[in-house]
Amino acid sequence: MEALRFGCPHVGTCCYGLRRVRAYELIKAKRDGQPLSAEQIDQFIRRYTQELIPDYQMAALCMAVYFRGLSGPELAAWTRAMLHSGEVLDLSDIPGVKVDKHSTGGVGDKVSLCLTPLAAACGVVVPMVAGRGLGHTGGTLDKLESIPGFKVHLQNAEFRRLVREVRACIIGQTETLAPADKKLYALRDVTGTVDCIPLIASSIMSKKLAEGIDALVLDVKVGSGAFMKEMVSARTLARTLIEIGAEMGKRVVALLTNMDQPLGRTVGNALEVKEAVEVLQGRGPADLVEVTFALAGEMLSLAGLTNDPSDARQRLNSAVRSGAGLNKLEEIIVRQRGDGSVVHDVSRLPQARGRIEVNAQADGFIAEIDSEAIGVAAMVLGAGRERVDSLIDPAVGLVLRRKVGEGVKAGEPLVEIHYNEERSVEDARNRILHAYRIGPSPSVPRPLIYERLGWKG
Amino acid sequence: MEALRFGCPHVGTCCYGLRRVRAYELIKAKRDGQPLSAEQIDQFIRRYTQELIPDYQMAALCMAVYFRGLSGPELAAWTRAMLHSGEVLDLSDIPGVKVDKHSTGGVGDKVSLCLTPLAAACGVVVPMVAGRGLGHTGGTLDKLESIPGFKVHLQNAEFRRLVREVRACIIGQTETLAPADKKLYALRDVTGTVDCIPLIASSIMSKKLAEGIDALVLDVKVGSGAFMKEMVSARTLARTLIEIGAEMGKRVVALLTNMDQPLGRTVGNALEVKEAVEVLQGRGPADLVEVTFALAGEMLSLAGLTNDPSDARQRLNSAVRSGAGLNKLEEIIVRQRGDGSVVHDVSRLPQARGRIEVNAQADGFIAEIDSEAIGVAAMVLGAGRERVDSLIDPAVGLVLRRKVGEGVKAGEPLVEIHYNEERSVEDARNRILHAYRIGPSPSVPRPLIYERLGWKG
Repeated sequence: MEALRFGCPHVGTCCYGLRRVRAYELIKAKRDGQPLSAEQIDQFIRRYTQELIPDYQMAALCMAVYFRGLSGPELAAWTRAMLHSGEVLDLSDIPGVKVDKHSTGGVGDKVSLCLTPLAAACGVVVPMVAGRGLGHTGGTLDKLESIPGFKVHLQNAEFRRLVREVRACIIGQTETLAPADKKLYALRDVTGTVDCIPLIASSIMSKKLAEGIDALVLDVKVGSGAFMKEMVSARTLARTLIEIGAEMGKRVVALLTNMDQPLGRTVGNALEVKEAVEVLQGRGPADLVEVTFALAGEMLSLAGLTNDPSDARQRLNSAVRSGAGLNKLEEIIVRQRGDGSVVHDVSRLPQARGRIEVNAQADGFIAEIDSEAIGVAAMVLGAGRERVDSLIDPAVGLVLRRKVGEGVKAGEPLVEIHYNEERSVEDARNRILHAYRIGPSPSVPRPLIYERLGWKG
Repeated sequence: MEALRFGCPHVGTCCYGLRRVRAYELIKAKRDGQPLSAEQIDQFIRRYTQELIPDYQMAALCMAVYFRGLSGPELAAWTRAMLHSGEVLDLSDIPGVKVDKHSTGGVGDKVSLCLTPLAAACGVVVPMVAGRGLGHTGGTLDKLESIPGFKVHLQNAEFRRLVREVRACIIGQTETLAPADKKLYALRDVTGTVDCIPLIASSIMSKKLAEGIDALVLDVKVGSGAFMKEMVSARTLARTLIEIGAEMGKRVVALLTNMDQPLGRTVGNALEVKEAVEVLQGRGPADLVEVTFALAGEMLSLAGLTNDPSDARQRLNSAVRSGAGLNKLEEIIVRQRGDGSVVHDVSRLPQARGRIEVNAQADGFIAEIDSEAIGVAAMVLGAGRERVDSLIDPAVGLVLRRKVGEGVKAGEPLVEIHYNEERSVEDARNRILHAYRIGPSPSVPRPLIYERLGWKG
């Protein structure tokens, strides 16, 4: 009868000491909270990457991990297995300390665009493998691609050369870097196992470690527009990432930063490049500058260039004042075959055909801006992807004319919509109106940098 | 970057009110302990059966169910969806109350072979869809197929005709009965989600309800040779099965029975048919007779033929004494194209070429017989399947010459091995010796029937 199979549920093979089905046993062990050995994890991930273990077994394992977690040694083994599923770049022959920055994703987060040239101008070597946007969040690669001609897909050899010569290079994940993660990420995406801290952490770290970095700064976003809505989970993710780094002999620092409202005043690819240029010209919005300087300062410190935060800030300020940061951005763009002149003339970036303002319907003070809703409004206009295969319109997006704490009168603009397709405007407009909450009195905004965790100089 | 995708992890579609990915959302809802609607469950299982939902999503869902369980209404919806994934037989035009028996599986469990003809001889209509063995447990179909010519694969029309005319028919699961269960069972088997009570219960009940029964008796085995090693989990499974039955308007009774040692004295297909014949001849082993009578008695009661247990027992005894039970078995065999004369001459059943005794190595009393180890010993000889595609040897198996509580002297036989392949004998012998524990004094065996749960006449 039915249950006759329960005793030995190993269809295809049998467990009575005759032969072992490792995949099955490993899933069950994790499900039952038993520890997995590094060798078991390594085999499972290797065989999964080679398509010897089917998606349904990995899906079951990931769900078991969601409920049972991964211990420190398991997590290290898992990350290592993903890291070694492909090529691991060795940049040790390139002089200087290689430091990357990773953000867990937010709305209006163009920090990489201003931080990379600034840190590089100050002497840090920045080999950055960035990603694309999906849903309400944007992606560094999409932003860079709004610069005419900019190439994000380079071979490893060219990446190495640019890291050596320019001291900074931003590319997309190649086929050879952590292929297990690529495959696993797509699976987690459709099996309800994305928001699982050990799986997030191993995914991030396996890719970052494959770049050949010495150290890493993490920008763990907390708030309505971030994946981590709460401090507790953000802190857990940060600590997990730092631990994996330590396990692999890398210095890792995490800043927990505020994502209660979009960062800066622009959301949309070319618009965000323009704003990043403004930061490098010394006239960027205060919140974006603060987060950029804080993260870049940590990079200087991790690179051993200074261990005094105020000295770091001074060096970054000098790089802005002297134009070294802007020149470095121009150099990065030119060497990645983009139109470098955009840094001097942002009108060369794609422009949307239409602009329309969304106005406040009452007097008051901005109490809240739902970043996720703003991100979706930008997506609806074409600035972001509804699906992984959606096309992006680099020109469209939003300019926030009011941010939290600022006053507004009925009829005054909250947001300026930059659009190319009129039919998407109404939807975006409604989402924007819902995203803004206007209160009777000015609220005190929360700090931008909540906490610093990790490596202590 | 990586985590940009967390906000809207719906690759292929998006959740921002634009479109919904039911599969993904349902997995996540279950993972997070949110209730699923009957419609959601029905859609998921229907689309899975149609291969519109891939195995990896079902695997993730089953693992989430493993951790979160299914509520009463969810379980009913799940079972109903599986039941209606295929044909549901309607036997209502056949006079009499249709009652089936289901066992959760044990070693030496040939109860169906003697219970079916006995209950039918007493007036119950028994439409039985039985299964095959795997691992250490045997299957009713395999046992029946040891009878020369016996056919277990009948079309639904023939099944209906035999149920009407013979009042009993035992067949294998057809392609059209609960196909969702067939597909799901194979998946659970390799993804560590077999031993999950709601999934077990819905699997059993969807198949049994598809037979068109009015009532069901469950034999939930508890002990070393059973899937449920402990009383608590056995009771939970029994209650879950009874609840589903109630939800579907079917009367269900469960007996929790002892599987601390094999049932009866034989393990192996033809050997078990022979022992079942002996029960119908009034000379079966006491434990097998007791379990058979207890379960068959419940069937009489569920069929409304009597509500007095001692009356039921008398009727069953009469059916044995009069030969009505044996004649009914002969009729079942003949109508399913088997050699009916085996009930009068068991030597017509397949016989193994060799016999050898395994002898006790010390004086004492049998304290314990590990049923699972005995089941595996029989499997090793060829009586059971190591894999789903293993071939079975109907003739081989074991005859237990000593059972728990009985005395033995060193050199006296514990078990008689019936074998065809000499090379498997040593392995079987070692397993048997390990399965028997001999103590210094006679132990008091535990009761055979622990508990009765469910429908109260």
